[in-house]
Amino acid sequence: MSSPIGLHRVVEPAGVLPQAALRLDPSPAIAADEVRIRVQRLNLDAASYRQLADAHHGDGERIRAAVMGIIESRGKMHNPVTGSGGMLIGVVEEAGPDSPLGLRAGDRVATLVSLTLTPLAVTDGLKDWDGLGEQVPCDGHAILFARSIAAVLPGDVDPQLALAVLDVCGAPALVARCLRERPAARVAVLGAAGKSGSLALAAAKGTVRVGVVRDDTERARLAGTGLAEHVVVADARDAVGLAAALDAVGGPADLTVVCVDVPGCEHAAILATAPGGTVVFFSMATSFPAAALGAEGLAADVTMLIGNGYVPGHAEYALGLLRSDSAVRRLLQARLEPRLADWAT
Amino acid sequence: MSSPIGLHRVVEPAGVLPQAALRLDPSPAIAADEVRIRVQRLNLDAASYRQLADAHHGDGERIRAAVMGIIESRGKMHNPVTGSGGMLIGVVEEAGPDSPLGLRAGDRVATLVSLTLTPLAVTDGLKDWDGLGEQVPCDGHAILFARSIAAVLPGDVDPQLALAVLDVCGAPALVARCLRERPAARVAVLGAAGKSGSLALAAAKGTVRVGVVRDDTERARLAGTGLAEHVVVADARDAVGLAAALDAVGGPADLTVVCVDVPGCEHAAILATAPGGTVVFFSMATSFPAAALGAEGLAADVTMLIGNGYVPGHAEYALGLLRSDSAVRRLLQARLEPRLADWAT
Repeated sequence: MSSPIGLHRVVEPAGVLPQAALRLDPSPAIAADEVRIRVQRLNLDAASYRQLADAHHGDGERIRAAVMGIIESRGKMHNPVTGSGGMLIGVVEEAGPDSPLGLRAGDRVATLVSLTLTPLAVTDGLKDWDGLGEQVPCDGHAILFARSIAAVLPGDVDPQLALAVLDVCGAPALVARCLRERPAARVAVLGAAGKSGSLALAAAKGTVRVGVVRDDTERARLAGTGLAEHVVVADARDAVGLAAALDAVGGPADLTVVCVDVPGCEHAAILATAPGGTVVFFSMATSFPAAALGAEGLAADVTMLIGNGYVPGHAEYALGLLRSDSAVRRLLQARLEPRLADWAT
Repeated sequence: MSSPIGLHRVVEPAGVLPQAALRLDPSPAIAADEVRIRVQRLNLDAASYRQLADAHHGDGERIRAAVMGIIESRGKMHNPVTGSGGMLIGVVEEAGPDSPLGLRAGDRVATLVSLTLTPLAVTDGLKDWDGLGEQVPCDGHAILFARSIAAVLPGDVDPQLALAVLDVCGAPALVARCLRERPAARVAVLGAAGKSGSLALAAAKGTVRVGVVRDDTERARLAGTGLAEHVVVADARDAVGLAAALDAVGGPADLTVVCVDVPGCEHAAILATAPGGTVVFFSMATSFPAAALGAEGLAADVTMLIGNGYVPGHAEYALGLLRSDSAVRRLLQARLEPRLADWAT
């Protein structure tokens, strides 16, 4: 019998979750609750690609061989050094009759679960990839379980823009949920001009929003968009400086959202938050002990959430923000443009 | 002017929080909102003591010299290798007129903020300590800031038992708050026979409580106490095994509390939790990325909290549980007895 979380695809070691497995079985035959996707492109996680590029001195041939080697030996694109994966784009080839994902053959989809737990087989040897970037055109197939997550790429949104949004769609959905459960008057977003930061601001519409950015370039991106009532430049690792910057625009926040991907922001985020308030950490650079001991050391009565990338309905919610909020759309498009230009060449 | 979080005591580097400082100023003269404590005993953090003992091959003289060296050079007992501290016991010598802590000269107190941010000066060279244990008798003084936390040791509870409870008093208080904010029918506690685990169970009285323990010895400690409706033996790192064990006693939990101090429990805790439920991580061994990516990979709609060791009123709440719940008192006393016996010799 198939397991909704894919336990039946684990080859070794027996009994672990697919993400913890050394090797998965990527056989194309699907169980009644599975979906098979014809893969068109892998988006490797940035940390994973960087590690591979460093290890092979930027030699595209060797990087490509390394990625093929991982996929063939593990049955998934799970970088054994960084522990990270990425996502993929493809077209639904077959959906089992009992799959709860609501997908149909022909749907163009992006997977929202990590490649580290997605059974994957590549059939073209990655011949169309030069090994020199995170975007990997490829032919092959991947398997989704009953509890996997995939989003149908919308026809009305530029696919690159949609992918950028889907990659971080948990952030705005969780901010919206927090605001429903614990209404907040003031929301501070650290790293406010980035992808997850700007979407978090859009989700906090109706509150007094403070966008914290690291420099004047980022300030220029955000100012005038209407996404934040206040834009302040501050180092998110400098607890004392950030608290002072917030005081200058009205005081600490009831909800602080950390979207800055550098280590050492925990104490600043805690000190930026009013007693009884909430901090949501979305940065993978967050240190659990630094947050836990920091709050205790500051006698800070704050609720601290680990940013779960999954919230039911997150993809639709984020795409809806993109459609309804022209400011966030323009900001994200401007961020993508250099990359879109790269793609065109 | 003095800062409620002690910024005025930071000597270097300028502008950081006391916990991040290389050196604090432990001068005995207090500001109007500070409190000076005559220190009687330091309780070194277990990880810190172990590192020092290893580094000095268990040589008590050298361990003592190392601790004195840290305190003299840093103005606080902040182990530079482990980054951890501990707590202290002493008697209030002087409380500034503006201190909000409610302490009076003569009160016997335990500090509930880490030694890593507490200005400390030792005047007896630690002459009464043999260097061979985490408990360090000493004479000297320490400073509490306006936002520090200290608990008056109660007269009606064995001091060792009170200290053991105060050390983990954030756990039961946060469990109680979670249950107020999001009522839960079923609560699972991983590591249920330990200090924080048994207090978390006591705080969840009125729900169906599942105590998860690692072996039959721990099961024997917990069974028959009435602290849990079900006691199950399972490895908290084995996601599949734990889910099966919970299914056997009624299914996943609405609130899962992680009190197991070993790495690798994140996925098991997430999978043990029902959709819409909450996981509270109290273990310092918790990995932030493992929790965040694990929940996303399992498409798990769970709220994940970083266990903040500070909740207003936590010390009184935990001591109240100890007084009112004879089961938790007996269990904790039994856990302490070997150590209390050591002390007597």
